[in-house]
Amino acid sequence: MRIILVGWGVVGQSLAQICLHRKKELAKKYGFRPRIVAIVDKGGAAIDPKGLDLEQMLSLKKEKGTVAASKQYGCLGMSALEAIESVEAEAMVEVTPTNIETAEPGLSYIKTAFRTGKHVVTTNKGPLALALPALTELADYNNVYLRFSGTVGAGTPVLEFAKNCLQGDRIISVKGILNGTTNYILSEMDEKHITFDEALKAAQKLGYAEADPTMDVDGYDAAAKLVIMANWIMDKKVTIKDVKIRGIRDVSSQNIADAAKKGCTIKLIGSIEETLKVEPTQISKHDPLAVDGALNAVTFVSESAGEQTIIGLGAGGTETASAVLRDLLDIKQNIANKMIT
Amino acid sequence: MRIILVGWGVVGQSLAQICLHRKKELAKKYGFRPRIVAIVDKGGAAIDPKGLDLEQMLSLKKEKGTVAASKQYGCLGMSALEAIESVEAEAMVEVTPTNIETAEPGLSYIKTAFRTGKHVVTTNKGPLALALPALTELADYNNVYLRFSGTVGAGTPVLEFAKNCLQGDRIISVKGILNGTTNYILSEMDEKHITFDEALKAAQKLGYAEADPTMDVDGYDAAAKLVIMANWIMDKKVTIKDVKIRGIRDVSSQNIADAAKKGCTIKLIGSIEETLKVEPTQISKHDPLAVDGALNAVTFVSESAGEQTIIGLGAGGTETASAVLRDLLDIKQNIANKMIT
Repeated sequence: MRIILVGWGVVGQSLAQICLHRKKELAKKYGFRPRIVAIVDKGGAAIDPKGLDLEQMLSLKKEKGTVAASKQYGCLGMSALEAIESVEAEAMVEVTPTNIETAEPGLSYIKTAFRTGKHVVTTNKGPLALALPALTELADYNNVYLRFSGTVGAGTPVLEFAKNCLQGDRIISVKGILNGTTNYILSEMDEKHITFDEALKAAQKLGYAEADPTMDVDGYDAAAKLVIMANWIMDKKVTIKDVKIRGIRDVSSQNIADAAKKGCTIKLIGSIEETLKVEPTQISKHDPLAVDGALNAVTFVSESAGEQTIIGLGAGGTETASAVLRDLLDIKQNIANKMIT
Repeated sequence: MRIILVGWGVVGQSLAQICLHRKKELAKKYGFRPRIVAIVDKGGAAIDPKGLDLEQMLSLKKEKGTVAASKQYGCLGMSALEAIESVEAEAMVEVTPTNIETAEPGLSYIKTAFRTGKHVVTTNKGPLALALPALTELADYNNVYLRFSGTVGAGTPVLEFAKNCLQGDRIISVKGILNGTTNYILSEMDEKHITFDEALKAAQKLGYAEADPTMDVDGYDAAAKLVIMANWIMDKKVTIKDVKIRGIRDVSSQNIADAAKKGCTIKLIGSIEETLKVEPTQISKHDPLAVDGALNAVTFVSESAGEQTIIGLGAGGTETASAVLRDLLDIKQNIANKMIT
């Protein structure tokens, strides 16, 4: 499979590492031979229709800051759109940062990939939060696949669990902790009896929270993931505008102390029932969702199989890259099945 | 699909209920039209090659205690082996009680089904704990499928999660709480500061524990599930003889109090690493595995995707029947894929 990789940050590089280290296993076990024919970063692109030398690309990033510095394969200043349009490939992997306001530039990358007949794997929540119903239609229209496992739970296969593990059953509702940063802050407030501001500073120091923590603490990141789940798992045609969002800035030490007295704790819970909501919610410390630190946790309620909770880290380069790999394998298998029928 | 149902207890009847209530949906969404052509219970069998009337069979059980009492379709005293041999069907669903010492009569039922070319779905841990490597070979030899999702976690799709959700990754180790009865007992001892004997009596009163609680409290049930996971997920050719087993009879109130002082609790943990073990183990109360009540929980450690924990009820008629349905759908899809290639 020929792949254009747009974005050469932690996730993109981790994917390259996995492809390098597990080349033989992927070929033998899955018949999967990924060939990364183009990489695009901020400095430009590197293109080799025979498949780029990934070790060399990783070194170039370290030494020169961009793959475009390659003497033989570099295209200094080439834009991602240009690369997606001009390079022949079966799939694009899009791992650029999330922009929750305009969804750009990711949205244009995805549309261009669709238009030029490429399957898309993305870890970018922006385009999905703002336009998933439209993008699903556009993928269908262009007869290509759109996959995005890494957007929810990073390496934790939340979307796959719901889609592949409960066959013949029906998921009635979903609720969960979908953002590790806010969970870390709330856990610290509960355990160390500190204020929101103190816990936020600690999270920023550890690199769990950004300098501008809005996406996390105001609930937008969790809401984006909720939208993705509602579309993918429950076939709801919704965008982030349909989510009632309240973040954790107003959660006081007193609120948490009051909850603790009742054997409860406060978590930022996203839920899909009649409506979609993200809000600080009091839950029992015995609830399987009551996980600490930066963990994510999602509970599915299904008609026959009952309640199931899946817990895992919601972040990490290698973890997210492993989700991208799962998506690529899924697309490969879908193509194979289609060719047979 | 024509199905012989052997065992007409809670799980068998729940499966019939699901087939009745979701008939249209199963046909429409999965093209699945289950036709139960024989039911065997302790009194004999009922057979109708056109598919038994399940409502009538459910009533017969209530009113007469056996489906063999059916005037038109009943075969009083017919044995399961006789039915499996003589009735034409694509699959057998075997939901008779577990016998961990001899695996019988389930083992003979499964072998006979294989020999007569029938796929098998079972919820019976006995044959699997004692002979899973041999049964897998026998199924392959006879060109039929053997599925057993309901044996681990009841409705919670533990086996499916490991097999279908971590594609391209490799599971390195597994650990978990695989028995709800012992988890209930240990949780009660911790929370209410009572002794093992007191907690066991409470569990028996609630129907969580049997009059003879050996299977649960001495760790055999957990060990059987561990064997099933090791074979299915990690391709280890092991039986229950390969598991080091220690139950919870020796766990004292003092042990639990000592653990609590360190922010820990004691759980009966089954683990698959170099060796297979079931033993009372001290874990942090912050560990996602530290679930209370009768819940089950399993943590998978994988090479790239990190640690994932899945939590759910490990028992229940409808829940287990939903796992049987998943297995039947999986077999149906495998047959369809095979016919295409």
